[in-house]
Amino acid sequence: MPNPTAAMLAIGDEILSGRTRDSNMNHLAKTLTAVGIDLKEARVVSDDQAAIVAAVQALSGAYDHVFTSGGIGPTHDDITADAIAAAFNVAIDVRDDARALLQAHYDRAGTTLNEARLRMARIPDGAALIDNPVSTAPGFTLGNVNVMAGVPAVFEAMVASVVSKLAHGAPLLSETWRIMRGEGDVAAPLSQIATDHPDLSLGSYPFQKDGVYGTNIVIRGTDQTQVSAAMAQLQALFPA
Amino acid sequence: MPNPTAAMLAIGDEILSGRTRDSNMNHLAKTLTAVGIDLKEARVVSDDQAAIVAAVQALSGAYDHVFTSGGIGPTHDDITADAIAAAFNVAIDVRDDARALLQAHYDRAGTTLNEARLRMARIPDGAALIDNPVSTAPGFTLGNVNVMAGVPAVFEAMVASVVSKLAHGAPLLSETWRIMRGEGDVAAPLSQIATDHPDLSLGSYPFQKDGVYGTNIVIRGTDQTQVSAAMAQLQALFPA
Repeated sequence: MPNPTAAMLAIGDEILSGRTRDSNMNHLAKTLTAVGIDLKEARVVSDDQAAIVAAVQALSGAYDHVFTSGGIGPTHDDITADAIAAAFNVAIDVRDDARALLQAHYDRAGTTLNEARLRMARIPDGAALIDNPVSTAPGFTLGNVNVMAGVPAVFEAMVASVVSKLAHGAPLLSETWRIMRGEGDVAAPLSQIATDHPDLSLGSYPFQKDGVYGTNIVIRGTDQTQVSAAMAQLQALFPA
Repeated sequence: MPNPTAAMLAIGDEILSGRTRDSNMNHLAKTLTAVGIDLKEARVVSDDQAAIVAAVQALSGAYDHVFTSGGIGPTHDDITADAIAAAFNVAIDVRDDARALLQAHYDRAGTTLNEARLRMARIPDGAALIDNPVSTAPGFTLGNVNVMAGVPAVFEAMVASVVSKLAHGAPLLSETWRIMRGEGDVAAPLSQIATDHPDLSLGSYPFQKDGVYGTNIVIRGTDQTQVSAAMAQLQALFPA
C-alpha cells in the first residue's frame, strides 16, 4: 500500500519578504519522513485571503493531509482561520471551549482576555481543536487540513500532537555514500543502479571541499533489503 | 504603478524529505525585496516531471517572473530542463554554445566531457543562457521562467545576473519597533494604524525573552513619508 501523502502551506508576508527564514517546513519534512507520510509539496503564500483559500483548496484536494503554519494570532493580519472557513464554505465564530482555554490561561497570567486575544478562539464550524502546550491558543483540524501556529516551538508541539493520531506508512530509510569524484563521473553508473531498483529513489548531491569535487549519493526506500542491495552495488563500483 | 510580481519554485526530493534545508528562497526573497519585485508565492515540488510541469505552468501564468532552483545537474534525477521544455511545449537538445562552455571548462580541469556532463548542455529551444561564474554549467531563461542551479553559491550568482537585467520596482522599505507587551495588547491599536494607512503592510511578530512577552512590529511600504507617519503613530502609543 502506498504511503499517505501530505502537503505543507506556510502563510506569512514575513517569509516572502525575506525577514523570516522559515524553519517549520524542514521540521515537518523530517517528522513526516520518519513516520512514513510522504511530503509531496510545500507552498508559501502571503497574508491574503484569496491566496490562502486557493492554496488550501488545491492542496486539500490533491493530498491526504495538509499542514498549515502561521496567521492564527490576535492581530489584524492573522486571517488564516477565516480563510480556512471560507475554503471549506463553513461558518466561523468564537467557540466556547477555545474561549475557556484562553480565559483560564489569561486568568493565570493576570492578563485580560480582550477582544484581540478572543480572536484566537475563532474556530470554523466542525473543526477539532489541536492542543497548544506552549502558549494555549489552540490550532484546529478541519477536514484533512491541520491549522497550526507559525512560531516554531508551537508549530512543533502541534505537529507532534497531530502526527501521533494519523495512520503511519512505511518509514523512508535513507543511506548515504560519499564518493570523492565529480557528479559527472558518478552519473552513468548511478543511472544504471536507479534503473535496476525502480522502487528506490537515488539522489546525487555534489560538494566541493578544499578544491576537490565530491558527491554524496543518498539511497532512499522503504525496503531495507532493496536499499542494502543498491548500496552494495554502489560501493562495489566506488569503493571507499 | 504596482511592482512586478514573482514566484519561486524549488525542485528536489531532498528538500521534501528534510535531508536538505532550503536556503535559496530566503536569499531570493531578500534580493527581490531590495529591488522592488514582490515575491508573492513559493513552492517546493519533488523530482517528478508532472509535478514540475504543473507548477511551472501555474506560476508562469500567474506572476511576472518565475525563479526555479535545482535539478539541472548531470544525473538521472536532474529533469528540470526537460520538464521546462515540456511545460512550454518546445523541443530540447544539446546546444552548441552551452556545449562549448562545458568543453572549455572540462578541458581546463583535465576532465572528460562525458555523456552525463553533456546533459548539462541540454537547453530548451528559444531559451537564453544564464551565466554560471562558479561551476560553468549554465542556467537558462525561457519566457518568464529563470531556471537556476540548487547549489546555493551557484543559485545566488545566477540570481544576481538575472535580477540585474529585470525592470525594478519601488524597493520595500521596512522599519521595526520593539514593544515589551504581549501581541494581544498591541493588536487593537495596530489594527487602527493599519486602517489609517491602507498602502502599508503592518506585521506583528511576538517573542518571549526571559519569561517576558514582547512584540516586534514591522511597518513595510514603498513610500518613506507614509512609513514614517505610521511609525510616529505607533511610537506615540507605545513609547520606548
